[in-house]
Amino acid sequence: MKLGSKISEGKTKIVYQDPTNPENAILFFKDDITAGDGAKHDVLKGKGKYDWETTKNCFELLKKHGILTHFVSAPEENYLVAKKLTMIPLECVTRRIATGSLLKRLPFKEGSAFNPLLFELFLKDDVLHDPFINDDHAVALKLGTYKDIDAIRALTREVFEILEKAFARQGIALVDLKLEFGRDSSGRLLVGDDITNNAWRIWPEGKKEKMLDKQLYREGKVSLETVLQGFEKASEISRKFV
Amino acid sequence: MKLGSKISEGKTKIVYQDPTNPENAILFFKDDITAGDGAKHDVLKGKGKYDWETTKNCFELLKKHGILTHFVSAPEENYLVAKKLTMIPLECVTRRIATGSLLKRLPFKEGSAFNPLLFELFLKDDVLHDPFINDDHAVALKLGTYKDIDAIRALTREVFEILEKAFARQGIALVDLKLEFGRDSSGRLLVGDDITNNAWRIWPEGKKEKMLDKQLYREGKVSLETVLQGFEKASEISRKFV
Repeated sequence: MKLGSKISEGKTKIVYQDPTNPENAILFFKDDITAGDGAKHDVLKGKGKYDWETTKNCFELLKKHGILTHFVSAPEENYLVAKKLTMIPLECVTRRIATGSLLKRLPFKEGSAFNPLLFELFLKDDVLHDPFINDDHAVALKLGTYKDIDAIRALTREVFEILEKAFARQGIALVDLKLEFGRDSSGRLLVGDDITNNAWRIWPEGKKEKMLDKQLYREGKVSLETVLQGFEKASEISRKFV
Repeated sequence: MKLGSKISEGKTKIVYQDPTNPENAILFFKDDITAGDGAKHDVLKGKGKYDWETTKNCFELLKKHGILTHFVSAPEENYLVAKKLTMIPLECVTRRIATGSLLKRLPFKEGSAFNPLLFELFLKDDVLHDPFINDDHAVALKLGTYKDIDAIRALTREVFEILEKAFARQGIALVDLKLEFGRDSSGRLLVGDDITNNAWRIWPEGKKEKMLDKQLYREGKVSLETVLQGFEKASEISRKFV
């Protein structure tokens, strides 16, 4: 893969300039896995490849459904070509089933279903630990207009429902999902970042104890091999999306 | 004042049945002041009377503007007759100026103004310490429909703007305001609870160091006499509302 200069490096990805197109970046998926604001960190050989394949398949599925994303191509293992976006520093979370941190904050019962989907915005801010915000905060922080936030909410829900159906065909419940959005050079809103086994909870047969996602790593109750197998399985599942 | 049976007693009010009308309650304003989930508690002789007068004047001002509230009459010092409502367990907060706990949660600068007004919902839940929620949470918790939450938001902003103008005529900035809502027997949404010096921040001349509200007590930097004077001044200011 011919790479341009390194633009940035995060916990799980390196971003390079695409030497053939100034409007594109090349993402490299690393084998690193982290949790707890980076307090926990391991390297799982092969994870990058699985993340790459999962993301590729998810974005191809979304493309088939007419969803605008930054995805351009996935020419080589671990490498993804994507449009450069001005990212909006928001984590956009949709939840179908109540679990995790939500239960500590609010009086929902674990396993109860949300109909309609529950949507939550979190401000990406390391110092403040990604606080939960509402639409008014997002607008006051100049992250967009009320219309933009409505569009982000609608898009997030649409993406969730597309993925939920794709998982359901294999008997797997999509529990929740985190997306990030950005704007291209003409100001259009696009799904950015990646959609991997880090970005959702998935429960085969709807059973929490069968979880395959990164939560296995956060909880730390199973071996790193078992965590890695979850990522491998997620990538296999995603192959049937397209 | 002829009182019926005691319905409930809170930190700052006692609620009695109105013996003359089954649809009404009588609120008695106590001299108690509390802060920090009840960790701090004092009795300030006269505070109940000031709260009563402030609430009476605020509700009369709102009535003049056609806002539906539970207020019926204030026949005697410390006693307020109000329609019995089924209260919605939400604290509905509007903010014009960034200050207080908001600054710890989010990257706003103290003193910066919100235009439009910033609106926040908090679930009244002692165990969970009144967590901040969004519209989706409120609907999922069955506190109302999306339309109800929109109505609550619009009403809260309308009330804020009425009070803000009334304060502004006396050179005082209304910084933020907390309201609570309930439904009457026919399901109509009404402003309930009270509107006192506990429910807002007010800064004469827009200067924080001149604050008159309950924040004086929360911070604990001034004497209890000075705190009580703030409540007295607030009640005097409210006399000019109507």
